[in-house]
Amino acid sequence: MRFSVLHKGDSGRARLGEIVTPHGRFETPVFMPVGTQGSVKALSPQDLDDVGVKILLANTYHLYLRPGHRVIEKLGGLHPFMGWNGSILTDSGGFQVYSLARLRTITEEGVVFQSHLDGSRHFLGPLEAMAIQEALGADIIMAFDECPPFPADYGYVRNSVKRTNSWARKCLDAKTNESQALFGIVQGGVYLDLREESAAELAAMNFPGYALGGLSVGEDRQARQRVIETTVKALPEEKPVYLMGAGKPEDILDAVMLGVDMFDCVLPTRNGRNGTLFTSHGQMAIKNARYADDDRSVDEACRCYTCSRFSRAYLRHLYMAKELLAYRLNTIHNVYFFTTFMTQLRQAIKEDRLAAYSKDFFSSQEPRD
Amino acid sequence: MRFSVLHKGDSGRARLGEIVTPHGRFETPVFMPVGTQGSVKALSPQDLDDVGVKILLANTYHLYLRPGHRVIEKLGGLHPFMGWNGSILTDSGGFQVYSLARLRTITEEGVVFQSHLDGSRHFLGPLEAMAIQEALGADIIMAFDECPPFPADYGYVRNSVKRTNSWARKCLDAKTNESQALFGIVQGGVYLDLREESAAELAAMNFPGYALGGLSVGEDRQARQRVIETTVKALPEEKPVYLMGAGKPEDILDAVMLGVDMFDCVLPTRNGRNGTLFTSHGQMAIKNARYADDDRSVDEACRCYTCSRFSRAYLRHLYMAKELLAYRLNTIHNVYFFTTFMTQLRQAIKEDRLAAYSKDFFSSQEPRD
Repeated sequence: MRFSVLHKGDSGRARLGEIVTPHGRFETPVFMPVGTQGSVKALSPQDLDDVGVKILLANTYHLYLRPGHRVIEKLGGLHPFMGWNGSILTDSGGFQVYSLARLRTITEEGVVFQSHLDGSRHFLGPLEAMAIQEALGADIIMAFDECPPFPADYGYVRNSVKRTNSWARKCLDAKTNESQALFGIVQGGVYLDLREESAAELAAMNFPGYALGGLSVGEDRQARQRVIETTVKALPEEKPVYLMGAGKPEDILDAVMLGVDMFDCVLPTRNGRNGTLFTSHGQMAIKNARYADDDRSVDEACRCYTCSRFSRAYLRHLYMAKELLAYRLNTIHNVYFFTTFMTQLRQAIKEDRLAAYSKDFFSSQEPRD
Repeated sequence: MRFSVLHKGDSGRARLGEIVTPHGRFETPVFMPVGTQGSVKALSPQDLDDVGVKILLANTYHLYLRPGHRVIEKLGGLHPFMGWNGSILTDSGGFQVYSLARLRTITEEGVVFQSHLDGSRHFLGPLEAMAIQEALGADIIMAFDECPPFPADYGYVRNSVKRTNSWARKCLDAKTNESQALFGIVQGGVYLDLREESAAELAAMNFPGYALGGLSVGEDRQARQRVIETTVKALPEEKPVYLMGAGKPEDILDAVMLGVDMFDCVLPTRNGRNGTLFTSHGQMAIKNARYADDDRSVDEACRCYTCSRFSRAYLRHLYMAKELLAYRLNTIHNVYFFTTFMTQLRQAIKEDRLAAYSKDFFSSQEPRD
């Protein structure tokens, strides 16, 4: 993987960058939709191409449990398995072990947990996370980390950061595949000194990229902003920074202005499935009765397949009738909204007008239905 | 609508035909996938184009109840509502009133029934069926009929045929839209004399096409064959014949050899959603463990999007993980199988080798998983 900064913008540390992986080139800031089980829910690889997705995220925890990383490895890795030729990032499994699995026991070696699918017992640590991610074969892989709960006291988080940093070193040492880029994950909760310390230690290990973990877990905007600002300053400027799990457009905008380059979130896909559509004027609940005979497209400024061919009335009907097509058309629209939003951000950075773009963006958002 | 016979085949009454509607031209025998609620489940109009669908069926009963035919009319009719520019046939609502709705009371004027959605009371008769189908605006519409249960005694079916034929006349008289073609529906259960009588009476009314109703409801193959043969002979040769609800490939083949031109069935779409895939060797249950690491496509002879890009292993994984993409990829494959099967039948008729095709077809089908 290669990362280059192409242009520094007019706002804070915002920058236009470029990432080249064995599966293509894309510009940053970039949004990665989530393909948890090896499929971005309701979308085909063709749909992803059509809406302009260049890189997606898949979850190590889920794929390890089902169908199993050895099955995927036997079939040539995640790219041929999914029929997806763009770039892929896999997470380490850490976050899901803490958020989804049952009966966790954390030791210095890793975590014993029970599968959320069938209760079976498993062990995941830095060595296992590397072996699984190498079998999956994503372009970018993540170090195994601990995500402390929020809120968590200073002492707990300090120990947790120590463990996460020692696991990061083990991941670096265990990694064997040169074509995959391993990112370190900065933890530290809302404690700025722990974030700085974590960032500095990881920076010294010279990862090709860094992620901010343990955010978007319930902290307020101000605390999040302070953590991002502090952490980004403590990381080497020539490396990409990835804010894990953050996906509200306003949060992405905030973070881009603080120097973040990569994002992932289930928001566009999950909201698509529950009928909440992103538009240039804010969010729209498509089930609202007022759309029953509305022949306009969801967003008249949008050029996605959904908006170019279907009315709000039809989308409402599909949603109310629980037609499978509803989930796909809504998801196409939402993911297109996100890829287009990122394109606009990159264009604004390129033209040194991100501050103005940000002001317009916040003033154009109407209250949600 | 115009129908022309292009070629008479070598087998029985099988023929190659052509239908031209306000939304295009297609050859017969043709298969119509079912878009019950204004959507062929899991497929977009683009998908339908891609798999070679030229005409689909939508259900009057469902669309009348939700979103309501007046909403669809206000939005320009079913074609713009669905974003589908190909041909559409709507049924009359009769079959669903008998099979889905509750608390039916049949009179000479029509049927009082309760909605399967919310229990609300409604009335549907020949005049209502015409008004609704004119609001929906399909290219081919169906007369309102009664579908007697199977088995039903001779006396009941005789009365039912009388009522259905009188409703057919009322539909003809009530119809106002010249651009829609109204088909009469032959009923009569398994009683050949009633079928002949029904066909002769309807033929005298000079419909542009005729359907065989009340089949594929539990009768055996031999009885069905006799009914089809008898009815087709009693209908004018220059009009298209549509066998309602029949969809197993072997049943289609049987009926084509008896002179049937049009078919509809939920089989490819419903089976797609439950993981049963049609192949040139018979049916495949994709959840079978033996496909867990099978890197072959579902059917190596198939050129659909699903087979050209995804392995059995991936399709099995999607199905086991209940991913939405499973339903779409399976449905694409199955509907493509049906459109391709019909193309092969037409080609065989054109080349006077339908009898040989039929023999090959039955010998290539392996027992199902």
